[in-house]
Amino acid sequence: MNLIVVGSMAYDSVETPAGKVDRALGGSATFFSMASSLLAPTAVIAVVGEDFDEADLERLRARGIDVQGVSRVAGRTFRWGGRYSRYFETRESLFTELNVFADFKPVIPASQRATPIVFLANIHPTLQRDVLDQMDAPRFVALDTMNFWIGGALAELREVLKRVDLLFINDEEAFELSGVGMLAGAAAEILKMGPRWLVIKRGEHGAFLFGEGVARYVPAVLLERIVDPTGAGDTFAGGFLGWLAHKERFDQAALEEAMVAGTLVASHCCEGFSVDAVEALDVEAIRVRQRRLAAQIADLTLSW
Amino acid sequence: MNLIVVGSMAYDSVETPAGKVDRALGGSATFFSMASSLLAPTAVIAVVGEDFDEADLERLRARGIDVQGVSRVAGRTFRWGGRYSRYFETRESLFTELNVFADFKPVIPASQRATPIVFLANIHPTLQRDVLDQMDAPRFVALDTMNFWIGGALAELREVLKRVDLLFINDEEAFELSGVGMLAGAAAEILKMGPRWLVIKRGEHGAFLFGEGVARYVPAVLLERIVDPTGAGDTFAGGFLGWLAHKERFDQAALEEAMVAGTLVASHCCEGFSVDAVEALDVEAIRVRQRRLAAQIADLTLSW
Repeated sequence: MNLIVVGSMAYDSVETPAGKVDRALGGSATFFSMASSLLAPTAVIAVVGEDFDEADLERLRARGIDVQGVSRVAGRTFRWGGRYSRYFETRESLFTELNVFADFKPVIPASQRATPIVFLANIHPTLQRDVLDQMDAPRFVALDTMNFWIGGALAELREVLKRVDLLFINDEEAFELSGVGMLAGAAAEILKMGPRWLVIKRGEHGAFLFGEGVARYVPAVLLERIVDPTGAGDTFAGGFLGWLAHKERFDQAALEEAMVAGTLVASHCCEGFSVDAVEALDVEAIRVRQRRLAAQIADLTLSW
Repeated sequence: MNLIVVGSMAYDSVETPAGKVDRALGGSATFFSMASSLLAPTAVIAVVGEDFDEADLERLRARGIDVQGVSRVAGRTFRWGGRYSRYFETRESLFTELNVFADFKPVIPASQRATPIVFLANIHPTLQRDVLDQMDAPRFVALDTMNFWIGGALAELREVLKRVDLLFINDEEAFELSGVGMLAGAAAEILKMGPRWLVIKRGEHGAFLFGEGVARYVPAVLLERIVDPTGAGDTFAGGFLGWLAHKERFDQAALEEAMVAGTLVASHCCEGFSVDAVEALDVEAIRVRQRRLAAQIADLTLSW
């Protein structure tokens, strides 16, 4: 089953305790598609500037990613710069230059309008709605958002939330969106807004899947070394939806497995700068890491 | 098998998003013993002032806790005041009055010197050492500490660490003590300092057990509501060591189960102010919560 992602392609400048990179390939659509394409055919809708390297598009094509929906327009590509603190507890944005991304008006090629699985990465909720208006009855729609839209475009966000199957957000965003300061209660409020499923991402602390009467946790992989967590959330979403596409199923059991798949690819993402570690992945590496994750959890039974 | 704990008994004034209490029974030895006594006979070594209510001592006795090592001296009982932020992310200490605790010189009654399991709660490392000097070849010694001693009494702390089987600390303390900013790496450094086992507590994000070639994670219980997390760390230690005492075993499998037991009682602790929720616990409640914890974790296998 095929996937389509609508989001950003960017050049990132990132400084972490492990080193720094400048003008490294980034953006939500890039991270997502590098992960999802491991598991299912993926098309990208994004915009880049004249300065975008053809070699970087070629990296996506080499993974079988369909880039016909990536438009190249006059101007510079979206750039972001950030720095992580000593223990990766906080991230400071050093600069954000939207450039060509400021005028992004996603257009879905006619041949891709029937794609069954849609990922609306973190863009303005109105653009997310415009994408859905162009799609032809998708089977499963997932959406990512951020505090910026919860604070600045809440009405538009709530409109589009009515039309999605699953929302990915982090814990702070869940508190802000729901007005509830506890995870389970926040989830209950958000599920009333429309999505049937909610994934609350907590970075190195794992992720929760919530649905009606459902609360399931998947811990993160304990890593020996983190290089750069940038893009881990989009990589998680890529592994998650890639798994659903691979299984061609959207039931609870498939979603729980998708949580695991997302966790595994996101853990790899953190081990390299940019998309480097995700690009180097193959299915065997995911299998190996799954065994490592499973071995990390203590048996939760008590023999009295 | 019996346990002994050396730590504080206090009156706490706590304000949380769920409400506030004043002069509520607290202190590391109180929380620990209320939890451990569910599973094994426990003796407390602590000091209280003239103002300490006999009724509060009676609450411990009612749980079968041996309080002959609680000395009452002239002056006021240790008092602490704190306030939690909106989502319990941070805690601010409003006041700390050591009072009689400032001159605490733990003396172990002769009849308790052969107690096989010892918990040295968070007190000056020199006092922790003095306690060990009074004990008669304990089978298992666990120690808790905090940033204050890592920063201010590191040499003394490192001396006593050589004599303990297990150290309980939180993640930030582990980073500070080891000088390493990643959990696994920090654990490896700390294990070189003497303890055979290390438990890194991460509050609502669960806890890790580390040992030679061992890294095992137990997630926290997802709570609908938190009332007051004060004392959860000592309650965890109480459940943990109580379990070892109950099983009379100190091997890896017993320690992994102890992680689960500690997690379960600590989750209850957070659901009430002071020791109220732990005091109300019975073994059946722990069994019920164990099933809830197990059901909360997604199956981590992937069926390709």
